Amino acid sequence: MKAIVPFKVINAKSRLSSLLTVEERTILARLMLQDITRTLKDSGLKVTLLTTMPFEWDAEIIVSEKDLNSALNDFLCVQDEPVMIVMADVPLISHKNVADMLNSPAEIVISPGRGGGTNVQFIRHPKKYHVDYYGASFLDHVRIAADNGLSVEVFDSFNTSSDIDEVGDLVELYIHGKGDASRYLRSITKLDTSKGRVKVVRGGEEGPVTVAHAPAKKYAATE
Amino acid sequence: MKAIVPFKVINAKSRLSSLLTVEERTILARLMLQDITRTLKDSGLKVTLLTTMPFEWDAEIIVSEKDLNSALNDFLCVQDEPVMIVMADVPLISHKNVADMLNSPAEIVISPGRGGGTNVQFIRHPKKYHVDYYGASFLDHVRIAADNGLSVEVFDSFNTSSDIDEVGDLVELYIHGKGDASRYLRSITKLDTSKGRVKVVRGGEEGPVTVAHAPAKKYAATE
Repeated sequence: MKAIVPFKVINAKSRLSSLLTVEERTILARLMLQDITRTLKDSGLKVTLLTTMPFEWDAEIIVSEKDLNSALNDFLCVQDEPVMIVMADVPLISHKNVADMLNSPAEIVISPGRGGGTNVQFIRHPKKYHVDYYGASFLDHVRIAADNGLSVEVFDSFNTSSDIDEVGDLVELYIHGKGDASRYLRSITKLDTSKGRVKVVRGGEEGPVTVAHAPAKKYAATE
Repeated sequence: MKAIVPFKVINAKSRLSSLLTVEERTILARLMLQDITRTLKDSGLKVTLLTTMPFEWDAEIIVSEKDLNSALNDFLCVQDEPVMIVMADVPLISHKNVADMLNSPAEIVISPGRGGGTNVQFIRHPKKYHVDYYGASFLDHVRIAADNGLSVEVFDSFNTSSDIDEVGDLVELYIHGKGDASRYLRSITKLDTSKGRVKVVRGGEEGPVTVAHAPAKKYAATE
C-alpha cells in the first residue's frame, strides 16, 4: 500500500514567517516530514514524496512541475493499489490514525483540516477518484466521491485535523506533539498563556535542540 | 450518569462580535447548547446546566456566582457517579463521541480544545479529581490526573476539539455541523473561499432559518 506526501522544498511554511526565520521554517518543515514519513513507514506504507524539484530523502521521489492537483491525479490514475495522501504539515498523525484509516470499510476516508481543508485521504481505488485541493477542498472531495458512487468516511481525529500552517497552529504541535518536530519547536519557542487561547511565542525553554535536522536517511522503528 | 454544561446566559460568545450581532450570538449560543443537550440526553446522560443566573431550560439548573473552576469543583466533589463536563461551544459532538468516551477504560478522558484548552472531560470518579480551566488547561488536567494517580486517555476527535469561540472557528460549524446551530449559521453567513483557509463572512445563502431559537423544552430523539 502506498502513501504520497506532497512537499514544498523551497520556502516551505511561509505563513509561519512572522514568528520563525526561513532557516527555522526549513528545519521545522523537514522534521515534520520526517515524523510523518516515519509513522507511515512504521505502519507498513511505501512512501513517495511529490516535489517540484529534486530532493534527497529516504523515499521514492516524484518530481513534477505541474500544479498540486494535476500532479497528484497523474499519480492516482496509474495506481492499482490503495493510496493514502498525507499533507506534509500534519505531524501529529499517529500509528493508530493510519491503522484506523486503512481499516475503514469506506472507499474514501477523508480527514478534514481546519478551515475546510483536507489533510489526509485514503483512497481504496485511486483510478476511480481524483483530488481537488485548495478552497473548501473537504466539500469538493465529498462531492467527487459522491459523483463517482464511492462511499465516504469522514475521519474524526484531532491529530490529523491539526495542520500546522499558520502561527496560531503551532500551539497544537507544541502541546500535543511527540516527535522530533515538536521537540525542535519547544527548543526555540515557549507558550504564552497570558490571555485567551494559548499561543506560541519566541523564546525556547528547553535548551539546545538535540534532534538531527538534515534529511534523515534512517528511521528508528520506535514510537 | 451525568453531564454538566457550563453556560453563559448573558453576552455569550462575545469573541464573535466582530461578525455577529448580540442577538445572533445569543441565538447561536442557545442553538449550540440545544444541539449539545440533545446529543447528551440521547446518549442516556442526565444533563445539568451550570449558570450564573436563573435560566429556563429542559435540564437541571445549578446557579452559582463562583468562578467556573470553583463551581465545577463544588459539583464534582459530591458526585458518586461518573460525570462528563462538556463546554457549551462544542456543537459538533456526536453520539459516537459520547459513547466512545463512556466506553474508555481510562479514569479520565480528556478531549483537547484548540490552543491548549479542554473541551470535554469524562471523569469516572469525580471525588478523586478536580478541574482547572483557563490557560493551557489541557496540560493542567493531564497533570492533575497524574498527581491523583488516575489513568488518562487523550480523546482524539476533530468534533470535540472544535470549540466555536472565535470568528475563525465558525467555518468548522458551517462546514461540518449537522444540527440546528449550523443550519442557523448557514442562514446568516456564507463561505469565503477566495484565499487561504476558508472563512465565514456575512451573507446567508440558504434563506430564512426555520429552526426554533427559543430555549427548547422538548427534543426529538433524532440524529
